[in-house]
Amino acid sequence: MPDQRRRRLASLAARLGEEKIDGLILTSLSNIRYLTGFSGSSALLLVTPAEARLITDFRYETQVADEVGDIARVRIEPVSLWVGLWALLRKMQSIEVLGFESAHLIHRDFQRLLSDGSRWQWRPQLDLVEHLRESKDEDEVALISEAARIATSALASVLPRIRVGLTELQVAGVLEKALRDEGSEDAPFPPIVASGPRSALPHARPSSRTIQRGDLLLLDFGAQHRGYCSDITRTFVVGMPTAEQRDVYAIVRDANHIASASVRPGMTGKAADALARSYIERQGYGDGFGHSLGHGLGLEVHEAPRLARTVEAALRQGVVVTIEPGIYRPGWGGVRIEDDVHLSANGPQMLTNFSRELIEVA
Amino acid sequence: MPDQRRRRLASLAARLGEEKIDGLILTSLSNIRYLTGFSGSSALLLVTPAEARLITDFRYETQVADEVGDIARVRIEPVSLWVGLWALLRKMQSIEVLGFESAHLIHRDFQRLLSDGSRWQWRPQLDLVEHLRESKDEDEVALISEAARIATSALASVLPRIRVGLTELQVAGVLEKALRDEGSEDAPFPPIVASGPRSALPHARPSSRTIQRGDLLLLDFGAQHRGYCSDITRTFVVGMPTAEQRDVYAIVRDANHIASASVRPGMTGKAADALARSYIERQGYGDGFGHSLGHGLGLEVHEAPRLARTVEAALRQGVVVTIEPGIYRPGWGGVRIEDDVHLSANGPQMLTNFSRELIEVA
Repeated sequence: MPDQRRRRLASLAARLGEEKIDGLILTSLSNIRYLTGFSGSSALLLVTPAEARLITDFRYETQVADEVGDIARVRIEPVSLWVGLWALLRKMQSIEVLGFESAHLIHRDFQRLLSDGSRWQWRPQLDLVEHLRESKDEDEVALISEAARIATSALASVLPRIRVGLTELQVAGVLEKALRDEGSEDAPFPPIVASGPRSALPHARPSSRTIQRGDLLLLDFGAQHRGYCSDITRTFVVGMPTAEQRDVYAIVRDANHIASASVRPGMTGKAADALARSYIERQGYGDGFGHSLGHGLGLEVHEAPRLARTVEAALRQGVVVTIEPGIYRPGWGGVRIEDDVHLSANGPQMLTNFSRELIEVA
Repeated sequence: MPDQRRRRLASLAARLGEEKIDGLILTSLSNIRYLTGFSGSSALLLVTPAEARLITDFRYETQVADEVGDIARVRIEPVSLWVGLWALLRKMQSIEVLGFESAHLIHRDFQRLLSDGSRWQWRPQLDLVEHLRESKDEDEVALISEAARIATSALASVLPRIRVGLTELQVAGVLEKALRDEGSEDAPFPPIVASGPRSALPHARPSSRTIQRGDLLLLDFGAQHRGYCSDITRTFVVGMPTAEQRDVYAIVRDANHIASASVRPGMTGKAADALARSYIERQGYGDGFGHSLGHGLGLEVHEAPRLARTVEAALRQGVVVTIEPGIYRPGWGGVRIEDDVHLSANGPQMLTNFSRELIEVA
């Protein structure tokens, strides 16, 4: 990855001139990881057209050397990252105007810029690195694919272990163990395990509810591999499905199929969302699909772009997005089927390979 | 808890006058949960001396009614939380000066206050609610105790399953499953499983390293119960310990014992830190204890107060803090033993009941 990182830093450096800033202070750990490879939890990064300087603390002395190599000069700062930054900047004569990440700096730290950093001029910046991160290169797609493989393999091993009488929390535990056994280095978000009427809550947390015959059972979770995330949802039925469960499931499955086969670079986020939404509406379930179709995926499990009714921006080639239509009926339950799709030059490429048919469990 | 919440809101309302603000906008989800009981992931809260108004989105319509009751008036906002806030505020004639949470508002949203909210005056506030949260009431201590019981029970069930040849990731999976089986509703942080030389890294993530005979094996993890967290670390030896492992372990164990038995309300954070640090220094291992002794624990796994060399503030009665001395030797390994202690009126009360003796596993 060092070559990609050098290219990314060069692309960012080129943007600095356009924004009329002499340098950019980065506080987003995901953006810092993207540019330098550093995966620790404490860092500031300064990027100028000439160089990148990374500041971290003593806990990461060994790790930062391994991960960053000569992409950035590293400073291990004993007092605080900000003290280290001021010391660095004071030695750099040519820097007068600096950008900072408006979406990743809390107000308290913004006040530091205006007090301790008052000798420089500060310009808020939005999405400079996020924009670079949208299109994934081949290596990144391979890492997301591996995260998707971990997730689908874990799911395959969990299915035979689901039993009537287990709680949602217990199923979450079985799933988390399976993810670790397959090599997931972290959970991109706490898994959702929602059964029966709780499957109608799009953001349910696992509860002590026990799984019962006749339930819909919704699992929404991800895996992480070298920082990159996957995100998948499948909905099962416990025992035999009712006609209504079958019907709703089939509509969501077909909406997923239509959208994931038809989504293309160049489409607006709104048009992509409509691929699934208009189908669900035609089937009479439009009111039941209350959220948007999907979101970008990479070093973060929610990143640009968004596939939603309000988004006029076009999807760029190379993005990896979730396609996750759902139908929710309060008191009855919900069905969501979510896949990760790479919008390649050759059309949409499915990264989450797992059956989309209705599976009976327990 | 409704009565406690009413008292908390009243305490906060009393602070508003002292800060010369007519109301406070809360953006910290932990602070909002503390004051109202709402546990969703999307909310703004406005507190004035007269009332509390909570704004969330449609996904939480059912949940917010269950959790908040009549503690706060709830607004379900279809467009965005901020649009909802402006609409609310425009109807409240007596409000001119508003506080906001400087440590919980990103710069981008701060700019909204200055643009869309320009008809009000804005005052940054720090730690108004965090300060209330420091001292735990009886119910909160009981919830943290239950989170501690979940963690120690899970650990007890994991120990017999640790085997030479398992990877750190696999051990993390066994632990995560055990935590779910005991009822943990979430992981307050990703568990640390660090073996052999990796146990010298205070913030190691589980890796694919396999556990070997002779390793130190460090597990640092927590459980969560109704929002409240526990945080515990134990270090084991795989097979028979060497004399050096025994010696280092005994020093850390005794440092933990001294500090957790002697820590008292009224001590400064610095004096509490010194309880363990001076003992470790006298044993000749001062250089190996690179982090601070502990931190507060509650709805967040790291909250006020801090037990550290730089902290002159006194510990308040009722806080729950971690006591986590450690000795780390690069290349050799590390030992950390961490417990959760409630500083009650009757002295320190240990919440994490699990042997502190050196246990041989596998």
